[in-house]
Amino acid sequence: MTNFDSFLSRAGETMQESAIRKMGSMLADSRDLVSFAPGYPAEAAFAWDDFRAIADDVLSSRRETVLQYGATRGYRPLLESITGLMAERGIRAPVEQLVVTNGSQQGLDLTARVLLDRGDVVLVELPTYTGAISAFRGVGAELVGVRQDADGCDLDALDATLVRLRAEGRRVKFFYTVPNFQNPTGLLVGLDKRRRLLEWAERRDVLVVEDDPYRDLYFTDVTEEADTRALAADDTTGRVIYMSSFSKTLAPAFRVAWLSAAPELVGRFELAKQASDLCSGALGQQIVNEACRRGVLARQLPRLRALYREKRDVMVDELTRACGDVLTWDMPRGGFFLWARLREPIDGDSLLPMALARGVIYVAGSAFFVSGTERQFIRLSFSSPPADRIHEGVRRLADALSDARAAAPAAAASQAAR
Amino acid sequence: MTNFDSFLSRAGETMQESAIRKMGSMLADSRDLVSFAPGYPAEAAFAWDDFRAIADDVLSSRRETVLQYGATRGYRPLLESITGLMAERGIRAPVEQLVVTNGSQQGLDLTARVLLDRGDVVLVELPTYTGAISAFRGVGAELVGVRQDADGCDLDALDATLVRLRAEGRRVKFFYTVPNFQNPTGLLVGLDKRRRLLEWAERRDVLVVEDDPYRDLYFTDVTEEADTRALAADDTTGRVIYMSSFSKTLAPAFRVAWLSAAPELVGRFELAKQASDLCSGALGQQIVNEACRRGVLARQLPRLRALYREKRDVMVDELTRACGDVLTWDMPRGGFFLWARLREPIDGDSLLPMALARGVIYVAGSAFFVSGTERQFIRLSFSSPPADRIHEGVRRLADALSDARAAAPAAAASQAAR
Repeated sequence: MTNFDSFLSRAGETMQESAIRKMGSMLADSRDLVSFAPGYPAEAAFAWDDFRAIADDVLSSRRETVLQYGATRGYRPLLESITGLMAERGIRAPVEQLVVTNGSQQGLDLTARVLLDRGDVVLVELPTYTGAISAFRGVGAELVGVRQDADGCDLDALDATLVRLRAEGRRVKFFYTVPNFQNPTGLLVGLDKRRRLLEWAERRDVLVVEDDPYRDLYFTDVTEEADTRALAADDTTGRVIYMSSFSKTLAPAFRVAWLSAAPELVGRFELAKQASDLCSGALGQQIVNEACRRGVLARQLPRLRALYREKRDVMVDELTRACGDVLTWDMPRGGFFLWARLREPIDGDSLLPMALARGVIYVAGSAFFVSGTERQFIRLSFSSPPADRIHEGVRRLADALSDARAAAPAAAASQAAR
Repeated sequence: MTNFDSFLSRAGETMQESAIRKMGSMLADSRDLVSFAPGYPAEAAFAWDDFRAIADDVLSSRRETVLQYGATRGYRPLLESITGLMAERGIRAPVEQLVVTNGSQQGLDLTARVLLDRGDVVLVELPTYTGAISAFRGVGAELVGVRQDADGCDLDALDATLVRLRAEGRRVKFFYTVPNFQNPTGLLVGLDKRRRLLEWAERRDVLVVEDDPYRDLYFTDVTEEADTRALAADDTTGRVIYMSSFSKTLAPAFRVAWLSAAPELVGRFELAKQASDLCSGALGQQIVNEACRRGVLARQLPRLRALYREKRDVMVDELTRACGDVLTWDMPRGGFFLWARLREPIDGDSLLPMALARGVIYVAGSAFFVSGTERQFIRLSFSSPPADRIHEGVRRLADALSDARAAAPAAAASQAAR
C-alpha cells in the first residue's frame, strides 16, 4: 500500500479530534447513555410541523432558486431577514455586510482563512470553545488564553498578555469571545466589560471576533435581553466580526448561520467561502427564511427560553441534591451549559471512564483550555435530554463520583507508596 | 474606520473571484441574458414531486436525526447508499472510506488542507476546473499545467514536468484530473491512458485526485458507460482520492457530494471537515438518501442523458449553422460543456463585453489556464437553458461575433498605427 506520510500537509499531520465530537460518536454508538456531552438543541422542541408545511410550499413552488446553486453570500431574501434580526439586536448589518455560513463553525473557519497565517496569535477566553480552537489552530495560529472572572475575561490580564506578545514580536490578530452564555462556562460578560473590551480593541488596534449563538436563550429569572447586547451593536469602526446561527433556535440540520463584517472585509469572506464550498444549500436557506418570515422563529424563542430554563432547573436541583458535596458551579443564566468544578482529588478526565461505565457522559473541561492543564472541570450540557433523562443522568453521575471517591484514596495511596 | 490591511492573511490578500461565479452573479442581475456560463443543471429536470414527497415523509417521521447535528463523515444510511453507487462504478468503497462533503468543492478544499502546504506543487490538466484552482491556490500551492490531447493529458509531458519539478527540489503532491467530460473542455480520457496514468502515479509515487461529477451524463450516440471507468476502480494501493456528487444528477441545493480515500487518509479528511463545518446538513442528506433508495436517482439518469444530449445537439446544430466559420470544437461526448476555439484575431476575453451587449454570456477560456495565456477559447455550457434559449443564445453569440469581426480590423489598424 501507499505510504502517505510524505504527502500530508502540516495541518494534515497535526489535526486532532474534537473532544465534543468524540463524545457525539460515543452517543451514537450506545443508545442507553445519558448524554450531557454535545450542545445539541432539544429535538422535541423543533417546529416539525412548520418545517414540513414550509418544505412542502417551497418545493411545490418549483422556483428555480429552490434546488439550484445559489449566490455565495447567501439567498438574498434570507439575507434581508437576517438584516432584520440584526436590527432587533441593535446591530446595523445591511445585506452587503453579511455572508451565510454552514453553521458558525464555517464562520470560524473562514475567519481563520481570511485573517490568520501560521504563527499569528489569537487571544481567547480561558476556557474557550473547542470548535474555535480547531479552526484557528488548523491554519497554524497560536492561541493564547486569558483567564475569566464571573463577568468575563480579566481585562488587565488581556492587555498585559497583548503587550507581552507584541514585545516578543508576535502578530496578534484578534480576540475571540463568546460573550453570551459562553461555551463551555455559560458565563455572561458584563455590559460594562463589553464596553471596555471594545475601547481596548480600538486603543490597541486588535480585531474582535464575537461568536453569539446563544443570545436568544437567556433565562428570564436571572437575566434579561438587555444583558446580552452584542459588542457589535456598539462597534463604530468595523472592528468586530460578528457571527450567529439558527442552529440553536431553529435546527442544526439546515446548517444556516451568518457572519457580519466590515465592508472592506466581507468580500474576502465571500471569496473564502467560494473556495470552500461555492455556496450554502438553497433549500435549507429558503426553509429558514420562511421560518423567519412566517413568525416560526419568533414563536419559538420564548418557548425555548422556558424549556431550557426548566431543564437547567432540573439539572441544578438534582446536582445540588446528589452531587452538591463534590461539585460546585455558577448558576447558568442562559444557553446550554453548566460548568462544574470537581473537588480534588477527583478530576474531569479520570472521572470520565467511570461515568461512562455508569452510563452518562459529559465533556472533560481540559479540552477547552488552550494553555496550562486544568483538569478540575466538567461541562454538563442540559439542553438535549428530556427532564427524566437529566434526573437519571445526574444520578448516574453521582454514582460515578462515588466510584471515583472510592478509587481516589487508593490511587493516592499507591502514588504515595511509589 | 479600521485599516484592515495588516490583519489579512496571505491567503486573504491574494484571493480572487472565480470567473464562473462572477458570471453567475451577472446572470442573477439580468433576467433576459441567455447564460452559457455556469455549469448549472437544468431546473426543469429536477425530480420536484419526488423531493416534495420525500421531504414530507422525512419531516413527518420526526426522527431526531432529521434536524439534528449529525456525524462528520455523513449520515450512515446515505454512506451505505454511496457504497452501493460506488460498487456500480466498479469502485470498492466501504463506508469507512467515505466522507460526505458540501458539493465536490468542499472535497477539493479538504484535499488542499490535508495534503498541501505553501509552495507544494499540484499537477493539473491544461485547462482545468477553476474551483480546483481556487481551492489549491487558497493554501498557497502552485499549480503546474500539462497540455491535453484528444484523449486526455499528454503523459510524456506529464512525466517530464514531474521530473523537472523534482530536480528543482519541488514537492509534487498529486495530479488532479477530471477524466469524464472534463470541465471546461468536455474531454473524455481514454481507457488506455487511464491505465497508464495509474501506472505512472505508482511508479513516480504521486497521488491522484480524481474529480468525477459528470460520469453518469454520457451521451449514448458516441459513448458508453464502460468509457467512463474511474481510475479509482483499478487503484489497488489507495493512491487515488476519488470524489463525485449528486449536484449534477439530483440537485445542487442539497450540497451533497462525497469523497473516498484510503483508510490511512480518510480520518484526516474527517478531521478537516470537522474543523470546517462540523457536519453536512442532515435534512439534505436524508432527502438524497431516500432519492437513492426509492429509485429516483436511477430513474433520473437515463432521462438526464437524453436531455443533455438533446441540448448538446441543439447547441451544436445552431453553432454549426451560425458560427461555424469562426468557431471550432470537438463534439462533447457527455457532461455540460462545449469548448470552442475562436478563429484569430477574435479572443474569448475581448468578445465577452460584445456578447454581454448582445445578451448572451459564457466563460472566457483564459480563466481555466494556470500557466501561459491562452485566450482563444470560450466555454459554452448547454446544460441549463431550454432548447429555445440555446437557439436564441447562439444567435446572439453569432451577432457578437459579427460585431467583433467588424471591430477587429479597426483594432488591428489602430494597433498598427501606434
